[in-house]
Amino acid sequence: MRAAELDAVEPLAHLVERFVRPEGLVYLDGNSLGPLPRHVPDAVGDVVRRQWGAELVAAWNSEGWWEAPQRVGDRVGRLVGSAPGQVVVGDSTSVHLFQCYVAAARLRPGRRVVVADPDAFPTDLHLLSSAARLCDLEVAPARPADVPALLAARGDEVALVALSEVDYRTGERCDVAALTAAAHRAGALALWDLAHSVGATDVDLDGAGADLAVGCSYKHLSGGPGAPAWVYVARRHQALVDPPLTGWHGHADPFAMDGRYAPADDVRRMRIGTPPMISLLALDAALDVLDDVTPPQLRARSTSLVGFLVEALEALVPELPLAGPRDPARLGGHVAVRSPDAWGVVRALAARGVVGDFRAPDLVRLGVAAPSTTHADLATAVVDLRAVLDAGEHRDPAHAVRPTVT
Amino acid sequence: MRAAELDAVEPLAHLVERFVRPEGLVYLDGNSLGPLPRHVPDAVGDVVRRQWGAELVAAWNSEGWWEAPQRVGDRVGRLVGSAPGQVVVGDSTSVHLFQCYVAAARLRPGRRVVVADPDAFPTDLHLLSSAARLCDLEVAPARPADVPALLAARGDEVALVALSEVDYRTGERCDVAALTAAAHRAGALALWDLAHSVGATDVDLDGAGADLAVGCSYKHLSGGPGAPAWVYVARRHQALVDPPLTGWHGHADPFAMDGRYAPADDVRRMRIGTPPMISLLALDAALDVLDDVTPPQLRARSTSLVGFLVEALEALVPELPLAGPRDPARLGGHVAVRSPDAWGVVRALAARGVVGDFRAPDLVRLGVAAPSTTHADLATAVVDLRAVLDAGEHRDPAHAVRPTVT
Repeated sequence: MRAAELDAVEPLAHLVERFVRPEGLVYLDGNSLGPLPRHVPDAVGDVVRRQWGAELVAAWNSEGWWEAPQRVGDRVGRLVGSAPGQVVVGDSTSVHLFQCYVAAARLRPGRRVVVADPDAFPTDLHLLSSAARLCDLEVAPARPADVPALLAARGDEVALVALSEVDYRTGERCDVAALTAAAHRAGALALWDLAHSVGATDVDLDGAGADLAVGCSYKHLSGGPGAPAWVYVARRHQALVDPPLTGWHGHADPFAMDGRYAPADDVRRMRIGTPPMISLLALDAALDVLDDVTPPQLRARSTSLVGFLVEALEALVPELPLAGPRDPARLGGHVAVRSPDAWGVVRALAARGVVGDFRAPDLVRLGVAAPSTTHADLATAVVDLRAVLDAGEHRDPAHAVRPTVT
Repeated sequence: MRAAELDAVEPLAHLVERFVRPEGLVYLDGNSLGPLPRHVPDAVGDVVRRQWGAELVAAWNSEGWWEAPQRVGDRVGRLVGSAPGQVVVGDSTSVHLFQCYVAAARLRPGRRVVVADPDAFPTDLHLLSSAARLCDLEVAPARPADVPALLAARGDEVALVALSEVDYRTGERCDVAALTAAAHRAGALALWDLAHSVGATDVDLDGAGADLAVGCSYKHLSGGPGAPAWVYVARRHQALVDPPLTGWHGHADPFAMDGRYAPADDVRRMRIGTPPMISLLALDAALDVLDDVTPPQLRARSTSLVGFLVEALEALVPELPLAGPRDPARLGGHVAVRSPDAWGVVRALAARGVVGDFRAPDLVRLGVAAPSTTHADLATAVVDLRAVLDAGEHRDPAHAVRPTVT
């Protein structure tokens, strides 16, 4: 069996043992919520029982809680090509995005166009529309492939190009370095949403010269449900960046209790209010899993898994077309196939113990978390998908009910 | 001993047993971080091990994670006089404040003045200044006592009166109902910061006719470090309120993945991105402590404790003047005394096992968390304070070092 052979030789295969893998479950929804690392419950227990319970407020100093947003930010930053001192962790991706949109507009006064993918994850577009309304910006829609043409036509009006490296539906990657360079040639900034990238691709923010980036932590990083997201500000912008959410944790001297806002002189100015420390320290612990792994190593494993999944899908379920490219080099950490019965397919797979997810209107999305997924998992999933389709299980009326969260 | 007698007869004295109280510590910093309820570690363990670890992404439905911001919001709302359906929990106080400032300005177009206390907690002023810059508002400073005069003079320009019920330094309360009514007479809205109120006062948001409110959850509610904060929007405003942070969790149909923002038709539109679920469910568990307690009962206990502390301070350390009023009815859940050596006093008390906190420039703040503090704790603290001053321990050079978080 080829899957078993690949699992036997893959150099990071041992990472899988660091996760709880519920018996009988093939979990391919790690890009909605990554699985639990085995050691995280004890780490969270220590945060709650000892740090909070026994040290109480002193833990803000003694346990390094105050600096945790930067410290954990640096740990995440390593995985996206950021040198230390450019990432903080703390709020949701949505909040960090809003910070970045307004801040980017202020870094390019006189330019009022923001280029964004009309098929981006909705929250990106919602927050951008809101920032545009507040800052009198124009949102110019363009798919990544069309951005260079738009920049050629209107580049001198563009303040910001805001894109996701990995399409949340199809898994397709775009070229961060090339699009960042194109933005810069036009005098614009580049903001990257790396929600589906971190832990899956070898994106290199510093190398690409990116200006701003955000991402979430509950997917391939397995930081836990609603784990605090992160924001990157290239060092060259940190003295000037002027975000709208000026909470006291971003103040140069928070305990002076000064009513006038004086921002910290570095990436700390992206901090806002008191971060959710238990969730943040769960993420901190989860990152231990990847301590001895480099981004290229992780990317190689992701590519091996994703490539195997694409081949298996093409071989066994050729009637469901891939939504994205077939070359794993051009994919992030998930693969999607189209089906008019996508909802039923996802539910029928779940009934067989294979958890993927549905993305409206017609996608079956199979997530490949490089640290915690095996080639054997993917083989099982595709064989089950074939069986679902053959038996018509996806048309079972029992699978038609839709819960709140799909 | 009077403290012991009061503890013996006080009807909520049993609540104290629900908290971890580290041996040898008198903890009077519950308004910076409330102590750990005994059952919370097991509840958090269940969230991490079973809900995340075993149910994985399905827990968003099966464990009610998706609705948790409203469900926990209702539990907090009960403690501040809010009927269900008007409070959500999820982001930091700072983020919720920004939502409210911009939303309030939009509810009162044509009026561009926001009245705020120049001595408010800094984050309130920082975020208000930022909102004012984005929305072309004028911030008119007024201490609570001076607000009616300002409204009399300029009321027709005022969009919002934004105040804290309890002064974070002195503990002094202001009259929420009277000031809300004054704002309304001028045609303005009232926003209340209840960070130091919830769990300490008997504030009645619905009864006062308040429009908007925010508060944190890590003080008297013991929700844990950085517990998600909460925001209240009176039902009459929910169909119109138009907050700037339009994340996908506030969308009417989040899983339609619609790029156009259509807000939910109720308080859910104050939701933003994915909330930090482990921290949020720690707060949820912590609220169990108060399930069988009414706000007036809790307020009575707070008043008993605070009144006892004021009397003890006046009797034993008359040379340190109270920063706020002496009548406990006019105080929230903390008492502060002034000393030019406040930093040294706080450190010397800590060396004796009495944890209060310092607030620049000259305050020794002693927090009284009604559920977890005893009259005996307060007696010990004041006796130790007397001893510190008599022995000159507050002038010990060893206490001069300042950590990051004070």
